[in-house]
Amino acid sequence: MTELKNDRFLRALLREPVDRTPIWMMRQAGRYLPEYRATREQAGSFMDLCRNAELACEVTLQPLRRYPMDAAILFSDILTIPDALGLGLYFEEGEGPRFHKTVRSEEDLAGLNDIRAEDDLGYVMNAVSTIRRELNGSVPLIGFTGSPWTLATYMVEGGSSRDFRNVKAMAFDKPELMHALLARLADEVADYLVAQVNAGAQALQIFDTWGGTLSNAAYREFSLKYMQRIIARLPTEADGRRVPVIVFTKGGGQWLESIADCGAQAVGLDWTTDIGQARARIGDKVALQGNMDPATLYASPERIREEVAAILTSYGHGSGHVFNLGHGITPGVDPDNVTAFVDAVLELSPQYHVAA
Amino acid sequence: MTELKNDRFLRALLREPVDRTPIWMMRQAGRYLPEYRATREQAGSFMDLCRNAELACEVTLQPLRRYPMDAAILFSDILTIPDALGLGLYFEEGEGPRFHKTVRSEEDLAGLNDIRAEDDLGYVMNAVSTIRRELNGSVPLIGFTGSPWTLATYMVEGGSSRDFRNVKAMAFDKPELMHALLARLADEVADYLVAQVNAGAQALQIFDTWGGTLSNAAYREFSLKYMQRIIARLPTEADGRRVPVIVFTKGGGQWLESIADCGAQAVGLDWTTDIGQARARIGDKVALQGNMDPATLYASPERIREEVAAILTSYGHGSGHVFNLGHGITPGVDPDNVTAFVDAVLELSPQYHVAA
Repeated sequence: MTELKNDRFLRALLREPVDRTPIWMMRQAGRYLPEYRATREQAGSFMDLCRNAELACEVTLQPLRRYPMDAAILFSDILTIPDALGLGLYFEEGEGPRFHKTVRSEEDLAGLNDIRAEDDLGYVMNAVSTIRRELNGSVPLIGFTGSPWTLATYMVEGGSSRDFRNVKAMAFDKPELMHALLARLADEVADYLVAQVNAGAQALQIFDTWGGTLSNAAYREFSLKYMQRIIARLPTEADGRRVPVIVFTKGGGQWLESIADCGAQAVGLDWTTDIGQARARIGDKVALQGNMDPATLYASPERIREEVAAILTSYGHGSGHVFNLGHGITPGVDPDNVTAFVDAVLELSPQYHVAA
Repeated sequence: MTELKNDRFLRALLREPVDRTPIWMMRQAGRYLPEYRATREQAGSFMDLCRNAELACEVTLQPLRRYPMDAAILFSDILTIPDALGLGLYFEEGEGPRFHKTVRSEEDLAGLNDIRAEDDLGYVMNAVSTIRRELNGSVPLIGFTGSPWTLATYMVEGGSSRDFRNVKAMAFDKPELMHALLARLADEVADYLVAQVNAGAQALQIFDTWGGTLSNAAYREFSLKYMQRIIARLPTEADGRRVPVIVFTKGGGQWLESIADCGAQAVGLDWTTDIGQARARIGDKVALQGNMDPATLYASPERIREEVAAILTSYGHGSGHVFNLGHGITPGVDPDNVTAFVDAVLELSPQYHVAA
């Protein structure tokens, strides 16, 4: 394996000393980049792009050519597993993801395909190994998945939802079925992440996009527990190096203490949480990732720089912080404003670190 | 004035002893009720319904005929003020509210109409006085408004938004303009609430629906500060009785301590906050309102009852709790499930109180 030239992302996740705060952006390979839109057009559908290892690699690398990001993230979708299970993923233009089938009964659950991640999701593993090879040790590669609860919301609702009425009604009225589905998903997700590590992923992020729509008690029962189960099944090392896990529950700011106990090395924060307060609450246990409001990227470069400064000051001195947005970058952002964002982190963060 | 026969809602908001936990539901006059849909059809557009005092009164009273609610809430919309200011409110079917004009410059702000709440929003005051008369002292009447920040999001974006990019960019890059707009709105909202009290409102709720989309610092600067300013201008009494104010910031669970300091008598909680923990944090300062997940109403009556029991247990003994959902009831709910919800509060809550 090629030696890793820039490991400050991995070091910060383990709260080891770094020379400056590392940075990457959720959805950094995305529609705000004209070169992404061109490749996407060339590929055909969104899933065609995910399934084409060369093009998925291309869009993964695009933001790294523009910005000195400290990590790359696999270009894929969180709904690859439900698709492989047989639900039939498709995208309606401007409507978000949809499934041809839903899972709302024992029969639906029993009817899901048996899958092996290496085979049935082999296109994802091809993308991972292709990207890892092309990165050539420049920065680490992040693999990812949706959380079981988040995947279940799409599988039960049949797509995106505003009120999650079917999946929540299932959790309330058929808790055994809900737990059976979540247990199945936790197994599939663990297999999927293990396969990604085997294919070359050097860190992992679990996106719990919809965990924050639950009550505190329901979050622990239906979301956190299954992420904990997944993490317990992951390899701690690959190529003799720790593979850190980041858990990101959007809207989970009230539950940081319990999230920090789930076994992950790092906790992602959305922008509603003050990162300094989060560090005081859980910074002795885990690293923190985040957390600038993505809408800040619609402001002027000067204002973006001030927000970066405020977050760095709030976190304070020492390692354990990976700079990121508090959610994915949105399509309307001017790529030059991302330059201002990344430059600010590069220029303003060294003062908070002693050189490693 | 007719004597108030049921005052447990007002008493609980002031943390005075009650015989049981009072209950009402946000959006209790709404589309889940077939009689509402019939009246709505009769009225014409949604705003026609708001502007017709007799029909607005009719839909306000409809849920009280079915359920023994402890309060009525004025039927109206949060966007009446921006409409009166001249932006031209309209509703696209299934799309949410829209405005013909937006406010994005000094000129736009200067071009807003001068308004007097009693005249330009006289149709709201007519509805308040009509409802108050028809209630005939059975339960108190709640008046309401949107928060300045929440109103500003619609005024700057021109309608509903997913990412609030224009209004947040204004807050970041033109803070003076943003503050001028918010100050103007705070004045108008205060006048509006005073007029509602003069017309007969006996309690007030400020809906800060979009405050939770801000960072902690931005929430204090752009939302909380202006709610505080409004509350400072409100009359403390009407008809010799305190007029309690409830502030509800959806997604504000991380900021309860600062919300509890804004001068309101009660803080509304969404369902992501554990109400027992909230009581431990701020229950010595304010009453709490909430906070069952509205999606619970899609579960079985038995399961709804269990959730009510869990919330009552979490809050514990004593006054200071007004039962409610954590957000508005959704249109697909079966009205019989609301019966189960209300009955559970009536039957299970007396054990937590000593008779007044």
